[in-house]
Amino acid sequence: MATPMVAGWLKFAKEIEGIVLDIAGVLYDSGDGDGVPIPGSIEAVNRLKASGVPVRFCTNATETTRVNLVAKLNRIGFSLEPNEVFPPAPAVCQILKERGLRPHLLVADDCKPDLAGVEQHDPTCVVIGDAAHGFTYDSMNKAFQALMQMEKPLLISMGQGKYYLETDGLKLDCGPFMKALEYACSLEAEIVGKPSKTFFDAVLKDIGISSDKALMIGDDVVSDVGGAQACGMRALLVRTGKYRPTDEKHPTVTPDGVVDNLQQAVELFLSCRDK
Amino acid sequence: MATPMVAGWLKFAKEIEGIVLDIAGVLYDSGDGDGVPIPGSIEAVNRLKASGVPVRFCTNATETTRVNLVAKLNRIGFSLEPNEVFPPAPAVCQILKERGLRPHLLVADDCKPDLAGVEQHDPTCVVIGDAAHGFTYDSMNKAFQALMQMEKPLLISMGQGKYYLETDGLKLDCGPFMKALEYACSLEAEIVGKPSKTFFDAVLKDIGISSDKALMIGDDVVSDVGGAQACGMRALLVRTGKYRPTDEKHPTVTPDGVVDNLQQAVELFLSCRDK
Repeated sequence: MATPMVAGWLKFAKEIEGIVLDIAGVLYDSGDGDGVPIPGSIEAVNRLKASGVPVRFCTNATETTRVNLVAKLNRIGFSLEPNEVFPPAPAVCQILKERGLRPHLLVADDCKPDLAGVEQHDPTCVVIGDAAHGFTYDSMNKAFQALMQMEKPLLISMGQGKYYLETDGLKLDCGPFMKALEYACSLEAEIVGKPSKTFFDAVLKDIGISSDKALMIGDDVVSDVGGAQACGMRALLVRTGKYRPTDEKHPTVTPDGVVDNLQQAVELFLSCRDK
Repeated sequence: MATPMVAGWLKFAKEIEGIVLDIAGVLYDSGDGDGVPIPGSIEAVNRLKASGVPVRFCTNATETTRVNLVAKLNRIGFSLEPNEVFPPAPAVCQILKERGLRPHLLVADDCKPDLAGVEQHDPTCVVIGDAAHGFTYDSMNKAFQALMQMEKPLLISMGQGKYYLETDGLKLDCGPFMKALEYACSLEAEIVGKPSKTFFDAVLKDIGISSDKALMIGDDVVSDVGGAQACGMRALLVRTGKYRPTDEKHPTVTPDGVVDNLQQAVELFLSCRDK
């Protein structure tokens, strides 16, 4: 049943020509093993894709390669293709090559193949991702020391998320460790991933629609919802994943709608378009 | 030989009635084992104490207890007494007791005895110190989760230093990890230790002098020099420890003087007073 906040966004559902979905917290909750699908999400994605509306998946996930992330999601029941999924690492790899940068990597080992083929000796930047257990005092020191040795220290961060929900609780994302290095070296990181406009724009370009025709659905009120809105997209917040009730009264971001989960969003969206 | 910058501060040397010294980077460089005295510092401290000028040691060191820190310094040649040394942990312990707070500790195991005697079940605050190798993804997550479960999350940080010099290079201090938790939980930590005015004031009270009669000597341009100056003290920067040449052109802090090391500072100070 539609709550008042849900009803509001239905007004523009007919204008939407493409949907961008966050992955963790919307499709599934990550954790030990492959993680767990959020109830209704597998069917919701399938229905959305079957309806003919273009769908892309925009994630700051850097715990593994794009191919392995898709394989993991498909093992738990989804049917995604790698070219539908936009994580930061392939985008960072392109930036490093274009700008001739040599990275010191502070990323999960499983993510490194997406950053392969770039020279890493005598680093000219540090690339940080969600290294999770790879964040140790030693690895943080090595990244810090690498930055302090650079003539112009450059920190490239794959997202700036604060935390995410795993099956056994909230876990720190890449953002806090990015902030630690920013503070230690008195610098500001360059973000690749949500909420960067460049990142959302690449996804919209792939769909071939303008931002005002696109709807983002995510569980991060700042990075997903605020980031997409800042690019001119509409954005829904789901009450799954890392969602907390206080997100609905966020001081700077007001979602275009709040839904219980992806299933509800898709049902309402499709029912509205069928009318 | 006195450089022009050194000469300037000699003008007020006769007004000084007490000296506050930072420890790491001024007396010694920490590292494997007990660390290494900075050349001339042992004699400089001895001469200063023999001169009758009251001396206190004000440190953000939280890698061990006050008693063990003094024992370590004395093993490498200094002659300090525990009651001359002011680290944050005993001050934090007093605050926890006064305010009835129960801490979740993210501190070095060796520091914990200075925080003993305080209830720790069902924590109402997180206390962070220089945990060094104790900063792991798991320990950071546990502190983060503890904060997120509190009705009013409170983070107490023993100092906010960015980094320090060990015998094998620059190492991240407590500050960056404090910033990580501040960002993750959208809060601002309460600092106990330099550059907090409360902390400097406690040392001045112990000497029994007003801040305008006190001289701070440290290697951290922000925390030692800027912090002391903000309390009305004069402050010298030494070119030892974590000092970097850019510190002499710091955007917000101008030391009252810059000296090569503690030995030079003490020689000039005492020679000026003897005149």
